[in-house]
Amino acid sequence: MHAGKKYNLLEFVYWTRRDVYKLLILATIPTVLYHFFDFTFLALPWVPVGLMGTAVAFIVGFKNNANYNRLWEARQIYGGIVNNSRSFGVMVRDFLPTASEQAIQQLFYRHFAWLTALRFQLREPRVWETLDEPDGIDFQHWYTIPERESKLDVELKSYLSVEDLAYVLKKKNRATQLMALQSKHINALGSELNDFQLMQLQTAVTGFYDLQGRAERIKNFPYPRNFSSVATYLLYLFVLLVPFGLLKEFNAIGQGTFLEGYSVWFNIPFATLLSWVFVALERVGESSANPFEGGANDVPITNISRMIEIDMRDMLDETDLPAPITAVRNILL
Amino acid sequence: MHAGKKYNLLEFVYWTRRDVYKLLILATIPTVLYHFFDFTFLALPWVPVGLMGTAVAFIVGFKNNANYNRLWEARQIYGGIVNNSRSFGVMVRDFLPTASEQAIQQLFYRHFAWLTALRFQLREPRVWETLDEPDGIDFQHWYTIPERESKLDVELKSYLSVEDLAYVLKKKNRATQLMALQSKHINALGSELNDFQLMQLQTAVTGFYDLQGRAERIKNFPYPRNFSSVATYLLYLFVLLVPFGLLKEFNAIGQGTFLEGYSVWFNIPFATLLSWVFVALERVGESSANPFEGGANDVPITNISRMIEIDMRDMLDETDLPAPITAVRNILL
Amino acid sequence: MHAGKKYNLLEFVYWTRRDVYKLLILATIPTVLYHFFDFTFLALPWVPVGLMGTAVAFIVGFKNNANYNRLWEARQIYGGIVNNSRSFGVMVRDFLPTASEQAIQQLFYRHFAWLTALRFQLREPRVWETLDEPDGIDFQHWYTIPERESKLDVELKSYLSVEDLAYVLKKKNRATQLMALQSKHINALGSELNDFQLMQLQTAVTGFYDLQGRAERIKNFPYPRNFSSVATYLLYLFVLLVPFGLLKEFNAIGQGTFLEGYSVWFNIPFATLLSWVFVALERVGESSANPFEGGANDVPITNISRMIEIDMRDMLDETDLPAPITAVRNILL
Amino acid sequence: MHAGKKYNLLEFVYWTRRDVYKLLILATIPTVLYHFFDFTFLALPWVPVGLMGTAVAFIVGFKNNANYNRLWEARQIYGGIVNNSRSFGVMVRDFLPTASEQAIQQLFYRHFAWLTALRFQLREPRVWETLDEPDGIDFQHWYTIPERESKLDVELKSYLSVEDLAYVLKKKNRATQLMALQSKHINALGSELNDFQLMQLQTAVTGFYDLQGRAERIKNFPYPRNFSSVATYLLYLFVLLVPFGLLKEFNAIGQGTFLEGYSVWFNIPFATLLSWVFVALERVGESSANPFEGGANDVPITNISRMIEIDMRDMLDETDLPAPITAVRNILL
Amino acid sequence: MHAGKKYNLLEFVYWTRRDVYKLLILATIPTVLYHFFDFTFLALPWVPVGLMGTAVAFIVGFKNNANYNRLWEARQIYGGIVNNSRSFGVMVRDFLPTASEQAIQQLFYRHFAWLTALRFQLREPRVWETLDEPDGIDFQHWYTIPERESKLDVELKSYLSVEDLAYVLKKKNRATQLMALQSKHINALGSELNDFQLMQLQTAVTGFYDLQGRAERIKNFPYPRNFSSVATYLLYLFVLLVPFGLLKEFNAIGQGTFLEGYSVWFNIPFATLLSWVFVALERVGESSANPFEGGANDVPITNISRMIEIDMRDMLDETDLPAPITAVRNILL
Repeated sequence: MHAGKKYNLLEFVYWTRRDVYKLLILATIPTVLYHFFDFTFLALPWVPVGLMGTAVAFIVGFKNNANYNRLWEARQIYGGIVNNSRSFGVMVRDFLPTASEQAIQQLFYRHFAWLTALRFQLREPRVWETLDEPDGIDFQHWYTIPERESKLDVELKSYLSVEDLAYVLKKKNRATQLMALQSKHINALGSELNDFQLMQLQTAVTGFYDLQGRAERIKNFPYPRNFSSVATYLLYLFVLLVPFGLLKEFNAIGQGTFLEGYSVWFNIPFATLLSWVFVALERVGESSANPFEGGANDVPITNISRMIEIDMRDMLDETDLPAPITAVRNILL
Repeated sequence: MHAGKKYNLLEFVYWTRRDVYKLLILATIPTVLYHFFDFTFLALPWVPVGLMGTAVAFIVGFKNNANYNRLWEARQIYGGIVNNSRSFGVMVRDFLPTASEQAIQQLFYRHFAWLTALRFQLREPRVWETLDEPDGIDFQHWYTIPERESKLDVELKSYLSVEDLAYVLKKKNRATQLMALQSKHINALGSELNDFQLMQLQTAVTGFYDLQGRAERIKNFPYPRNFSSVATYLLYLFVLLVPFGLLKEFNAIGQGTFLEGYSVWFNIPFATLLSWVFVALERVGESSANPFEGGANDVPITNISRMIEIDMRDMLDETDLPAPITAVRNILL
Repeated sequence: MHAGKKYNLLEFVYWTRRDVYKLLILATIPTVLYHFFDFTFLALPWVPVGLMGTAVAFIVGFKNNANYNRLWEARQIYGGIVNNSRSFGVMVRDFLPTASEQAIQQLFYRHFAWLTALRFQLREPRVWETLDEPDGIDFQHWYTIPERESKLDVELKSYLSVEDLAYVLKKKNRATQLMALQSKHINALGSELNDFQLMQLQTAVTGFYDLQGRAERIKNFPYPRNFSSVATYLLYLFVLLVPFGLLKEFNAIGQGTFLEGYSVWFNIPFATLLSWVFVALERVGESSANPFEGGANDVPITNISRMIEIDMRDMLDETDLPAPITAVRNILL
Repeated sequence: MHAGKKYNLLEFVYWTRRDVYKLLILATIPTVLYHFFDFTFLALPWVPVGLMGTAVAFIVGFKNNANYNRLWEARQIYGGIVNNSRSFGVMVRDFLPTASEQAIQQLFYRHFAWLTALRFQLREPRVWETLDEPDGIDFQHWYTIPERESKLDVELKSYLSVEDLAYVLKKKNRATQLMALQSKHINALGSELNDFQLMQLQTAVTGFYDLQGRAERIKNFPYPRNFSSVATYLLYLFVLLVPFGLLKEFNAIGQGTFLEGYSVWFNIPFATLLSWVFVALERVGESSANPFEGGANDVPITNISRMIEIDMRDMLDETDLPAPITAVRNILL
Repeated sequence: MHAGKKYNLLEFVYWTRRDVYKLLILATIPTVLYHFFDFTFLALPWVPVGLMGTAVAFIVGFKNNANYNRLWEARQIYGGIVNNSRSFGVMVRDFLPTASEQAIQQLFYRHFAWLTALRFQLREPRVWETLDEPDGIDFQHWYTIPERESKLDVELKSYLSVEDLAYVLKKKNRATQLMALQSKHINALGSELNDFQLMQLQTAVTGFYDLQGRAERIKNFPYPRNFSSVATYLLYLFVLLVPFGLLKEFNAIGQGTFLEGYSVWFNIPFATLLSWVFVALERVGESSANPFEGGANDVPITNISRMIEIDMRDMLDETDLPAPITAVRNILL
């Protein structure tokens, strides 16, 4: 996520520069034809373009709303992981007798392993994600995505016993099977916990599966491609027609002034500006559509996972707590 | 679901080609009458058409929103089935003593049978679904729907004992009675489980009934036909009037140019384009209205059910796990 | 609910025919005055009418949204009753020893009685419902509402013991007191159930009270009359002004053609069409506002209740299951 | 709440009469200046006024939506109180041995006391409520608000023992401490209830605190004053400009008719009508903003509380049940 | 929060005065150039500006909606803390034997400490908050924010034992570790509570962690900067173009009157007014975006925390209850 005040204007324009170039070209073509070749019939009536603009505003607004909700739900899920982790932490610590210190530590550290496996899974690429497209590649020149810099097995080594690690790496869905190990461990502690405590810890496992599954749902089910495609094509169509629709208006404003016959050139900057408004809106929504890919506007899951680790180790009164993940150039991952 | 980057433009146009033909005809008729028969009074004022366009944008937007929510809830339900299945899996595995290996296996496989029965039920046709209409038939030339290629009793054979199978096939709602068998089995295990464990497993059964019922609700209660019909008829009415409303505008743009008297023919492509924008929007929403019928934009319930089976069998450390269902030509079912 | 593909156009127009007559009269008056009496000052400017149209689109859209949500929540509530009934069914069947067959049967059938009492209560008329207005009376010529054809005490007789029936008929809110009988019965079974099982069944009772209460809330708290009234009056006002606002436009289109001076008569069909768009939208929303009254677009609670009975009796392996309620002329009640 | 078909037009106009007077004056001033003093430059262009109208429609729609949600949530809360009260009722009745009849009665009647204390607290005035403004005072000429006609201590006397009454009247938040008495009583019954039953009743107490707190939240946290104020001021600004923006249009429609030079007077009724549309919309939303103050469109909490009392006393087979609260002139409080 | 009737107009204008100055300048520049330098070509066509206005209304409306939801969720969270605190209070008081008076008191006061630590954490500044910008600094001349006037360790002293205080001040997230102390204390009370009671109190701890985490989520995850920035830049762009787009209209209204050639000056006030409408809308949403920073429109968490303390100490029949926090100049913090 961007953790600063706002994107400054340069960043914003830089971010959409590829679109701006295209829009300029789109605006220039009809203007040139109008002015030099006198193709005045290119001056389409504004009326159908304007109504199309309203429809495009609807569809882009709809898409942005859906994508905002995806981002916000993703953040809620990780918020839920924070909350459940704290509750799970105090239950494990306070239910088990102090003699079981080792079991407590194992359950805590396996939980960190689960957090790690989950964030690695969530940051694997998907076909519909945009991090490996030109805009995303720009982004990666300036920031590194922790889950692309490191390897899961290396990271897990510091949290898991040798057997657990070997077991988990053989599995398809590692996060799922790590949580299954927690379940097995808890149930094997039967003699040290009473039935009420066992049930509460099992409920915590159920809760973590629920949160993991919700995150995987957002990861694996993109904003539906039919809705996404129609928004894109209608936006393109609108943007294509705007410079035609404004020709006449801009030609008219120069009449009777020293710009007579030249004011049509105003069409280029202004049609571009108007089109850019809609394109920028669509871009912004698109950039939040896949909140786990590791982009600049995503949920900072590395940061949150670390924060959970700090809080839980602080519960055990450990002293060498790891440092929090901080924002680099305002971006927190 | 479509699991690619987007529908390409050709697919998109091909998909709506029947509408495009009709829109072209609708746009041609008034243009021909205007040009050749000089019926200039056909040039309706734009003002009522434009306001109707705004109203149609509202109603189509509303319909798309509702249908998107239906799709998204359908996906959430199957997400819930994933989560509850994992929790159920670890509970069955870790609650029962290792000696009860057979009971564990039976409960797991009967669960797969429930998943199978459920997806067959959800993919049965309904009157209001569109898979057996021309568009849907096109679709079926390229993809096969697993639940139409196979038979439920064949599929269940690999998961159920002979008696269970015979019992279930006699029943009205097989998924319901399969889950009822799970309940009976769990309660019959009474001596191997304590009361807390029994209660948690019974709660899991309740959870599965809840998810099944929610899926059946979406299946059996379409987007209300009154809302759906009004959207269709108002859209038709608007689309019918658009080419009349634009006649005058397009006639005007040629005035004073070499196209004078001919520019009215521009009405045909542009009225079609504008109408198509609204028709395409409506189409897209319609294609997500019934998320379980087996279309290109539906919830991939075969894929998800398989994925659950893999994860749960992986929990039991089985080795010959089935392959995941993958997308064919970008479509995942 | 309408269980077909869509309302056909004739049904749709027939349904709004009373409005169409009124709109035609409203459109004719100013046109006649304009044409025959030359009251050209009646041609109001379009600008305030158009803005009013936008405001009316907002308010009607808002109302439709609220009413759609009422319908959808009503369907969710009955979906919840389905789910909870199944869970309750398996718990009663599997918790109680097989020796208690009679108690099982009593609890099941009293549950059907509760379903019956609930649907009779929900289909009693309310002042703000529209089933006994002209449109609703049309509807009742073609369909019969089961809860108006039969009597509650007759229906309950097949489900309840003589004492239960006598007890319940004395009570104010029969559904509430039937569920209270379930609670009493369950708690009286104490020796055959353990505390965990008792608690789960009591929780089921709580769940049914919750669902019943939610249904009663929708039944007894209409879409607020202030919001409803303002939508109606603003719509009327708009519809009244539309034919005045379009006079000038339609007068103009004939100028210079053989229709000169007569094209103003186009105002009648087109003002009616435009007004009808808004009126039809409002009608559609209104028809879903009270989803339990028994109209063509309501939740099919008779059908769902019967379906629950079938599923639950199937759980007990009864053989003479009742037939499902099916749609009559596409309408399912 | 209004429990009739709708507000009739006279009630509606009467309700907004003060606004209509003001709007008429606002429309008259520029018209007079234009006509008699020939200040034709007062005829502002419509374009900025129209766009402002769109923005005002957005903000008023937003406000109405929020206020509708406040009303609906308030009704849901009281629906929840109904449901939980019934569940609490059957649990108390069926858990306690019949010998504890007195305890049962005490718990039931203290519950009625809680309902009473809660509705008195919710109907205390707040600064931002509108019941003591001119419109609200009109309203109070025709209806009496039960919580203003009676006193809490008098009402509580019939439900509480002398000590309980004295204890509660000393407390700050009486509803909270009444429920705390329920909790104390339940826990003191320990020997007559088992731990499962105690836990379920304690959970009911938690549920009631939750519902009470949600009601208090809506009572004590108005629709945010910044959002409310901006809607009001922008609406005023728009309404102020409308008559200026329409001058030219209305002046024009008389040209060439016998009304030439006089048609500008049409500006007065029509600018008023258009402004009134927006003002009426805002009024309607405002009237649902504080759903507990006791106005005509509020949640009928006296009626609902009485209804709960009837249902619960009916559970105990009491015979002298109180009469339900009914609507007076269509208004139910 | 503002606890009065509304912001008066002066406050409102004063609040946006910096924007008004800028808008005036923006409107003056093109007007001067048009009038004195005869740059009539500056009179941009209204059409693209108007469509941009619609798009800006969408995006600002979207932002306001999201920010309103943030505020409202924040209030719900604190409402939840109220409810859970009351439930926790009665459980602690009524579960523990009266002999454990000291433990009861410790648990109550540590809860107040948690409330205090939480509100201090929530009122720490964040980069994206606006309290230390010019508008926020104005605000702070008139009101003091309790959490900036006092120190956490001082406040905690009155609630915690010496050891607890020392322990907590060493920790990273004090609220989290205070709640962890509650968990430890509750589990250490094992002999005085039965397992059911322990479980219910542990569930309360889980509930508090959930509410704390949700508050922290809103605190630490601002309205996404990409959405926020695009709204700002598009608004700026629109506001920049408005005075150009209205030049021609205002020039025209003076034609043929004694203001001919001067009416263009009307552009300055009216372009400013129209721009201000959109700017004011955006401001209002922005002012609710960070509901915990301590501004005039935030959730009054100091007041609510105090209110909880009063209610809980009233449960213990303490007599020297602290005074409630009241509004200062209508602002409640």
